[in-house]
Amino acid sequence: MARMNRQWLIAERPNNRTLQATDFTWTTTEARSPGPGEVLVRTLYLSCDPSQKGQMENIGGYAAPTEIGDVMRAGGIGEIVESNDPSLKPGDKVVGAMGWQEYLTTPAPTLLKVGDDELLTEHLGALGGVGMTAYFGLSKLGRPFPGDTVVVTGAAGATGSVAGQIAKIAGCRVIGIAGGPDKCRWLTDELGFDAAIDYKAGDVIPKVRAAAPGGIDVLWDNVGGQLLDDLMGEIALYARIVICGGIARYEAEVLPPGPTNYFNLIFKRATMHGLLVIDYQSEFPAARIRIANWIRAGRIKTRQDVQVGLENAPTTLMRVFSGANTGKQLLKVA
Amino acid sequence: MARMNRQWLIAERPNNRTLQATDFTWTTTEARSPGPGEVLVRTLYLSCDPSQKGQMENIGGYAAPTEIGDVMRAGGIGEIVESNDPSLKPGDKVVGAMGWQEYLTTPAPTLLKVGDDELLTEHLGALGGVGMTAYFGLSKLGRPFPGDTVVVTGAAGATGSVAGQIAKIAGCRVIGIAGGPDKCRWLTDELGFDAAIDYKAGDVIPKVRAAAPGGIDVLWDNVGGQLLDDLMGEIALYARIVICGGIARYEAEVLPPGPTNYFNLIFKRATMHGLLVIDYQSEFPAARIRIANWIRAGRIKTRQDVQVGLENAPTTLMRVFSGANTGKQLLKVA
Repeated sequence: MARMNRQWLIAERPNNRTLQATDFTWTTTEARSPGPGEVLVRTLYLSCDPSQKGQMENIGGYAAPTEIGDVMRAGGIGEIVESNDPSLKPGDKVVGAMGWQEYLTTPAPTLLKVGDDELLTEHLGALGGVGMTAYFGLSKLGRPFPGDTVVVTGAAGATGSVAGQIAKIAGCRVIGIAGGPDKCRWLTDELGFDAAIDYKAGDVIPKVRAAAPGGIDVLWDNVGGQLLDDLMGEIALYARIVICGGIARYEAEVLPPGPTNYFNLIFKRATMHGLLVIDYQSEFPAARIRIANWIRAGRIKTRQDVQVGLENAPTTLMRVFSGANTGKQLLKVA
Repeated sequence: MARMNRQWLIAERPNNRTLQATDFTWTTTEARSPGPGEVLVRTLYLSCDPSQKGQMENIGGYAAPTEIGDVMRAGGIGEIVESNDPSLKPGDKVVGAMGWQEYLTTPAPTLLKVGDDELLTEHLGALGGVGMTAYFGLSKLGRPFPGDTVVVTGAAGATGSVAGQIAKIAGCRVIGIAGGPDKCRWLTDELGFDAAIDYKAGDVIPKVRAAAPGGIDVLWDNVGGQLLDDLMGEIALYARIVICGGIARYEAEVLPPGPTNYFNLIFKRATMHGLLVIDYQSEFPAARIRIANWIRAGRIKTRQDVQVGLENAPTTLMRVFSGANTGKQLLKVA
C-alpha cells in the first residue's frame, strides 16, 4: 500500500548570499516500503539549524556532500509506522536524519529510540545537537571554573542559552549578548544570567567592561564578525574562546574579516578552539542523562519556537538567519 | 672614579608606523657606583627583537610600561666590572636587562651568570628568549608528534629557525616559509628542513599544498596578515596554531584584518594559542641544558648577524623589521 511522500529537494546552493525559498523544490513521490532490517518512519518534528545552510553549500567538508536534487537534510523526530526490525515497533518515537519529507525509509540502527514523554521535542534541542554542543564545548574546550566570567554571544539562541545555563551550574558569572529587550529579559529574569546586553541598543563593549571588569575568561561565540573581534579585546589572562557558530558569516556575500584582535591571544596567553560536536558522539548518552536531570530540576530552561506544516520548511529555516525565532526553531510536520 | 655612560633614550612612541632613528635620543650620563648587593656591569652584546618596539608602545600590558625619556630596553650580555655581592666577581659574564647603554648598575639577583665559552652569545639566541620561545611554544602548545607536518613562517628568523629544528628533532616533516633564495637554501641545505618556500617568489599556497598534501598539523606563525589567513585554510584535523609573532602587524599604520579563515578552526577541530615565553620561566634551566646539548651535537645550528657600536643601535633594531638581518640580530657594544 503506497504512501505519498511530500518532500523538499535542494534546487540551488546559497553560497555567499541569503537563503531563499526558491533554493528548494516541492515534490511528491511514493514512500519506499521497508526492506529487511528497515523501518518506515513518519516525520513529527524537524529541527532548523544554521548548519543546514552550510550543508547545502558543502562547506567545511565534515559532512557527506550534498547534491542538487537531494532531499533537504534535517534532523527530526519521527514515529515508527512499519518495522522489519525487532528493535523498533510501530508507535515508537525516534530521532534521526529525517530530512524535509513526510516519510523516511531507513535501516533501524540509523535511528535513536527516545522516550515518549514531556522531553520528546528536547531531543532536537537541549537533549540533541544543541545541548551536546553546549555541554561538550564547555566541558572539553571552554572549561568553566567557579568564579570565571563567561560571555555568550547569540545568548538567546538554542545553543547559547543552554551553554550559559550550564556555565551558571558550573559556578560562573554569565553575561549574555542578544538582540532586543525581550530576549535580554528572558536571559536575566528566567534563565538566571547575571547580565544581558542588547547589541541592538549599541555601546556593547562599554557594557561588557562594566559587567566583566576582570575580563572574559570564557568567550562562547555564535556570531563572529565585528562583535567577536571587539570581544577578543576584552579577554582575561588564559581565556578560552570557543568558536561555536558565526551567524555574521552565514549569509555574507563577502566574508567579514577575521578578528584583528587575534593577537591578543599572545598577550593574554589565550586559546581559541573550533568545535564540532560530532567528535564527542561516544559520550552523548552520559551527557543526555545529566541535561535531562537539569531540565527536570528546573536548572536548564528552554524555549521552543514551533512553526507548523512541511510546506513552510524553507521560510521556517530562514527565521534562524534573520533572528526572528525565539528559542529553538522547530517545524511540526504531523 | 666616575665612568661616562653613553645611552639611548626613548624619545617618541612608534605606534602605528615604522620605527625611526629619531625615536631615540643619544645622551651621556655618569654610571652610578654600585651600592650594597649591587654590581656595575659593562655591556658586551645587545639583543635586537621585534618585541622591543611593542615595549616602546606599551602594547599588550605584559611588561612594565615605558616612559618617554627611559633608557631603551634591551636584553644583553655584560661583564662584571665592580661587585658588592659575593655571587658575582669582576670578569664574570652575565645576561640581563642591560638596556641601550654602556654600563648598568643593578642588584646582583637581576642577572644570570653564564659560562664564558663558545656559546656565550647564544644566551641572546638559542639559549635565550628566542630558544625558550621555540622550546616552550612547541612543548606546551604546538605539541609536535612524529610524522606531523609543521609549517613555520618567518622560518629563517631567530625563533623560527630554532622552532623548525626542534620540530625536526621531534620527528616531524618541517616546511619553512622565508623571504629570498638564500634564506630558503639555508633552511633546507644547512638546517635540514624538508622544504622551504620563498614567499617573495609568489604562489605560496600551491607550494604549501604540494609540500604538505595532508595539511598542516602544527602552524608556527611569526608573520600574521594575509599569509596567516591563507595558511589557516590549509590546516589538518586537530591542528595546533601557535601565534609567536606578527611581523606584518608591527609597523602597520592600520592593523591588517585578522584571519577570515579562523572559522576553519571549527571544521578542523583546531586550536589557536597565544604564546608569551615568560610564563615558563621556572622551566628555563632544564630547557637550556637540552638546547645547549643539541647545539654542541650539531642538531641545532644558529646564525648571528652582528652589527657593531652602540651608536648604531637604532638602525640595527630597524634591520629586524625590514628583514635585512640574516639570523639572530645582535649588536656588539664593547
